[in-house]
Amino acid sequence: MPASSASATQNQAVLDALSRCIAACELCADACLHEDNIQMMVPCIRLDRDCADICRLTAAFIARGSDHAQHVLKECIEICQKCADECGKHQHDHCQQCAAACRACVEACRQYAA
Amino acid sequence: MPASSASATQNQAVLDALSRCIAACELCADACLHEDNIQMMVPCIRLDRDCADICRLTAAFIARGSDHAQHVLKECIEICQKCADECGKHQHDHCQQCAAACRACVEACRQYAA
Amino acid sequence: MPASSASATQNQAVLDALSRCIAACELCADACLHEDNIQMMVPCIRLDRDCADICRLTAAFIARGSDHAQHVLKECIEICQKCADECGKHQHDHCQQCAAACRACVEACRQYAA
Amino acid sequence: MPASSASATQNQAVLDALSRCIAACELCADACLHEDNIQMMVPCIRLDRDCADICRLTAAFIARGSDHAQHVLKECIEICQKCADECGKHQHDHCQQCAAACRACVEACRQYAA
Repeated sequence: MPASSASATQNQAVLDALSRCIAACELCADACLHEDNIQMMVPCIRLDRDCADICRLTAAFIARGSDHAQHVLKECIEICQKCADECGKHQHDHCQQCAAACRACVEACRQYAA
Repeated sequence: MPASSASATQNQAVLDALSRCIAACELCADACLHEDNIQMMVPCIRLDRDCADICRLTAAFIARGSDHAQHVLKECIEICQKCADECGKHQHDHCQQCAAACRACVEACRQYAA
Repeated sequence: MPASSASATQNQAVLDALSRCIAACELCADACLHEDNIQMMVPCIRLDRDCADICRLTAAFIARGSDHAQHVLKECIEICQKCADECGKHQHDHCQQCAAACRACVEACRQYAA
Repeated sequence: MPASSASATQNQAVLDALSRCIAACELCADACLHEDNIQMMVPCIRLDRDCADICRLTAAFIARGSDHAQHVLKECIEICQKCADECGKHQHDHCQQCAAACRACVEACRQYAA
């Protein structure tokens, strides 16, 4: 079933949240590499990468109305939540912004899945 | 060089345009499969797919401040332009919306590259 | 935990199977667009695309030793199996080759997950 | 033009090289995070990531016979070469293996492009 104009509009909220989350994760993963104590940032970098990747897949599946969007959404929400928790521990701006983007993405994905 | 908060804000315009273009291309490629005369839509479907993929790469490179963002931007602009031209020929809503998203993406990429 | 040389070798079988599956799905999705009866090929094209995308994500997660590899493997196996079933219904060479690549990928993913 | 069985076979060499390069880059980027002197590995991690991403795009374009495969191949060769040069400077197994995979990929891409 192709996405109708109506659902395209409905989809926009979750697609925007996913896009913001991807960008925040990509930026955070790279910015962490330039922090003094990189060792401490390793879990953050690794989660950022997984989070950006699963969000990209989820966005593609939602945008094209894939039957499998609901399946990957569950995993997407789980990884976004973990990433928000990890980034939220660090005071760097990029971590705090990433945590906020991840939390917003979790919320948007949950509403979409419902 | 990590992207600063300032550049993150500047980046948002092009990242939003890329995200809208990706979503429009994914939707259009799938919706074309449900049109009566699919044969006529084949060039559109193929360009939609290439366009979504190059936009995803470009968005990732820009978001993480990659040294290679400028290189892929050129190819991204070229494919977006071709996709806009092809989609613009068809009267389906999804094609017209995709053409508009591609044109907006070309414009945003050009401003970013300048 | 970084993947050791040992696990890198062990990973090679599943990574090769995923890579072959991605290539077969990409080729099949495009070749289907050139068949006489495209309408009949639409479910095949859509599954090919989802399958290629989930295999790319799974390969990335396995290659970098992500904690989330096991999670996405389950979904990967499910989509590969569906794609094998759908492609297996069609007599085109590209469909038969894609079905075989998907089945080999299911097998490799199951062994890896075990 | 859909890839024929003949070209599918010809494509296999470059697709295998791209797949090995992606896997080596993903593994290396992650393994670098666990080295004692991460700071020194930052350029390596960043190139690994760009290299894996451009190789994924190039593999998709080649596999589906995209008109744009030749364009992205040039950029792919350039990033693979840079990544080989950077990884080649470090004595870690994962860096040396990544450098070798990148060099093999450059070679395969050049032969394919010719």
